[in-house]
Amino acid sequence: MKEYIAPLEKLIEQFQSFPGVGRKSATRLAFKVLDFTEEKAQEFAEAIVEAKTKIHDCAQCFNFSSDELCNICTDETRDHSIICIVEDTKSLMAIEKVKDFNGVYHVLKGKISPMDGIGPDQLKIQELLDRVNEGGVKEIILATNSTIEGENTAMYLTHIIKKYSDIKITRLAYGIPVGGDLEYADEVTLFRALEGRRELV
Amino acid sequence: MKEYIAPLEKLIEQFQSFPGVGRKSATRLAFKVLDFTEEKAQEFAEAIVEAKTKIHDCAQCFNFSSDELCNICTDETRDHSIICIVEDTKSLMAIEKVKDFNGVYHVLKGKISPMDGIGPDQLKIQELLDRVNEGGVKEIILATNSTIEGENTAMYLTHIIKKYSDIKITRLAYGIPVGGDLEYADEVTLFRALEGRRELV
Repeated sequence: MKEYIAPLEKLIEQFQSFPGVGRKSATRLAFKVLDFTEEKAQEFAEAIVEAKTKIHDCAQCFNFSSDELCNICTDETRDHSIICIVEDTKSLMAIEKVKDFNGVYHVLKGKISPMDGIGPDQLKIQELLDRVNEGGVKEIILATNSTIEGENTAMYLTHIIKKYSDIKITRLAYGIPVGGDLEYADEVTLFRALEGRRELV
Repeated sequence: MKEYIAPLEKLIEQFQSFPGVGRKSATRLAFKVLDFTEEKAQEFAEAIVEAKTKIHDCAQCFNFSSDELCNICTDETRDHSIICIVEDTKSLMAIEKVKDFNGVYHVLKGKISPMDGIGPDQLKIQELLDRVNEGGVKEIILATNSTIEGENTAMYLTHIIKKYSDIKITRLAYGIPVGGDLEYADEVTLFRALEGRRELV
């Protein structure tokens, strides 16, 4: 469906490669680019290339970093004996926003998903085991998502870490989201909420 | 709210300058860029700069064009005696999609809107009058949007064109959208639909 002149059509196609961006949204975005000044368009283009070339994985935890180690791994005020395992940087940022966790992270860069051909070897699991073997780790918090793949990954990690060492392994709590209505909670969540109930003092 | 490392934060800010893109969507889009290969990111950046530098206004109708005149103005099979006036290229494309209109266009590049400080001089109205004065124009279709500003612009154009010449001036028909339910039509649309009713043969 080519309807615009070539350079515009090309830009629309580029925008369509983003998740959740269909033909209509892509067209709207491309028109906005044409509204930009030339400097602004140049700036935008540079930000894209720069983000791609300057951002690497932290050599220790695989969080995004512009240096060898990320600013969490180099932060001396954080507790390096607690490692929180997440699937990706988005999960890491979600936990960071709470501003309550003071440990460090390990980004797996995915989840075990045989359907997509992703096994433990495609993830940063060996690197995690290396960190554990170096010693000094007291607790591992499994914060993979609460999906089937996330659960499987957490189970696999529990199994493999327990084999090597005796570190405390914990998992995030499940339950009714705060502000959530019981009526709309699914059965599995409700089951987990009941199972994890706590005594009020 | 800086939470990411500088190059990523910069890219997120760039994406936030698009209409309808908030912090969350911008973050999602920026993360997608990091998922791109370096070639793909380069290609995307180039498409932006290229669209901005290669696309200009058609010297005659102000549609987007990569040459001096756009492919509609240079199309000899089209009827150059009928000019359809639209506010912007998006409106032009909407009419082109119908594949029924065979005349040419004139893009005003906006609408008269005193609230935003846009008067007739900021629009391509003088250029339209010049085209009309050149002769050969038989009909002008006013296809500005059906908003207050669009209506005002249409009224202003009718007034000013009639002053100079005797060309037939028409306006798009108003009424119930096809497939639309009377129950949900607003009073003004219904009023216009009644007013513009046509006898069935």
